[in-house]
Amino acid sequence: MISSDHVRIVEVGARDGLQNEKTLLPATVKIELIDRLSDTGLQTIEATSFVSPQWVPQLADAAEVFGGIRKKPGVSYPVLVPNMQGYQRALAAGATDVAVFTAASEAFNRRNINASIDESIERFAPVLERARADGVGVRGYVSTVLGCPYQGDVAISDVVRVARRLHQMGCHEISLGDTIGVGTPAKARAMLRAVAGEVPMAALAVHFHDTYGQALANILACLEEGVRVIDSAVSGTGGCPYAKGATGNVASEDVVYMLHGMGLETGVDLDLLINTGAWLATQLHKETASRVTRARTAAA
Amino acid sequence: MISSDHVRIVEVGARDGLQNEKTLLPATVKIELIDRLSDTGLQTIEATSFVSPQWVPQLADAAEVFGGIRKKPGVSYPVLVPNMQGYQRALAAGATDVAVFTAASEAFNRRNINASIDESIERFAPVLERARADGVGVRGYVSTVLGCPYQGDVAISDVVRVARRLHQMGCHEISLGDTIGVGTPAKARAMLRAVAGEVPMAALAVHFHDTYGQALANILACLEEGVRVIDSAVSGTGGCPYAKGATGNVASEDVVYMLHGMGLETGVDLDLLINTGAWLATQLHKETASRVTRARTAAA
Repeated sequence: MISSDHVRIVEVGARDGLQNEKTLLPATVKIELIDRLSDTGLQTIEATSFVSPQWVPQLADAAEVFGGIRKKPGVSYPVLVPNMQGYQRALAAGATDVAVFTAASEAFNRRNINASIDESIERFAPVLERARADGVGVRGYVSTVLGCPYQGDVAISDVVRVARRLHQMGCHEISLGDTIGVGTPAKARAMLRAVAGEVPMAALAVHFHDTYGQALANILACLEEGVRVIDSAVSGTGGCPYAKGATGNVASEDVVYMLHGMGLETGVDLDLLINTGAWLATQLHKETASRVTRARTAAA
Repeated sequence: MISSDHVRIVEVGARDGLQNEKTLLPATVKIELIDRLSDTGLQTIEATSFVSPQWVPQLADAAEVFGGIRKKPGVSYPVLVPNMQGYQRALAAGATDVAVFTAASEAFNRRNINASIDESIERFAPVLERARADGVGVRGYVSTVLGCPYQGDVAISDVVRVARRLHQMGCHEISLGDTIGVGTPAKARAMLRAVAGEVPMAALAVHFHDTYGQALANILACLEEGVRVIDSAVSGTGGCPYAKGATGNVASEDVVYMLHGMGLETGVDLDLLINTGAWLATQLHKETASRVTRARTAAA
């Protein structure tokens, strides 16, 4: 069932990870983090978010960070934008790739941004139009694809509808996110298969949080189904705003270890990634969530 | 590829888990642990080990523990025995199921028990003969099936040879253990497939440690290959003697969560299992390694 030996990791630690960490890192440390990640061979590194600093104080220094990082040729540094204002700030800071976001759950959108799914999509429709004119690539995040903290189950048909709409509107890649980490492999596979019936698999990515420890198993099921783009965060940074103290994003180190062990190729130097994750954990004053890094450190 | 909807969990926390914990629990706590596990619906609970107390001081109270637990009808309580002396102590304590062990790595056997693989098997051959006469069931553990801390890679042909020999000698079930947790799904699958070419799949179990975070993904691959018996330890107890501080056995809670999410049936009450694991973690003065339990606790 495996269609290609290359898997692209979308490193989301500097954005999805850090925005859910209690510790506020200075811009200089974020810049060092991204520069280190650039040296690992990663092709896509989400750099920051241009949402309102009132919503996400952790990333209030988005312009400073984006302006400070070394842009390595061949590496893409997308940034999250919530609306046209954020898009304009991002472009002013030099961004050439952006990401927009919505959820597959009505209840989640209502609680988070006080809008229906359709309204949330309409809000960033102008961003997509403008991005097309500007030649800016847009990634679309769909969250709560396997469960919602407010409504519980999420219908696969809702995930398919939202993903298809984002793709039709011009998102070159749709990241399907299990925001609260409740999914299990058979459900992940069924969801991905349904979406891939409407959006080309090559335009799909999966984004698992390890809250219930299921992330790597879910990724394996989705790899078997044909996906070749995986979101993850170095050192498993982040957490779950709906379950304080729970595990966050799946650790990039553990994903890369699995992929390389399976003979899949990522272009990532695992040793450099482990070093970067261990360094980040010390900056955040917490133990790394990467079990590969823990095992390597313990054995050293 | 899924051949049956029932998966049997072999709970190894009270033996493989506790023997690798620093904290020595009193016999009363071990008895309470096993009695609680009996109430969760588990069918097989490894109770203790009759190896020499000099080797494993954590389980020096084997006879007291085994004599003290409530034997629930329909539940099997195997105990580990290293040789005829251990077998006799186990039977004197009332055991009706035992387990023997060897490794697929020559270097591992040499370092651990100063014997070649063949010599280690010859050592417990009398146990198997005697058990057959006594009507005692014998499980066989093969460790280091996906890697060895001393020799590195382990040839699949060695795993097949050892598993086949144990089965021929009368072991009704062979547990294939990734002792140091280095395996990845494609390798796990290939190993299991090769062994299942010589030993019926119904007589095989898989035993993964989560040292590198790969356990659930490896279990998924093996389920897809057809295995229906999985070893795990409540609360992810245990550790790795070859990587101090690293993660131990895969947590039973996380395995059961995945299986139930996939529509597979275990007979285990997940809530009771979570409660038991959380209680055990407090007894061991450590955070549970079950991410399901952490998420549930955090959300509560």
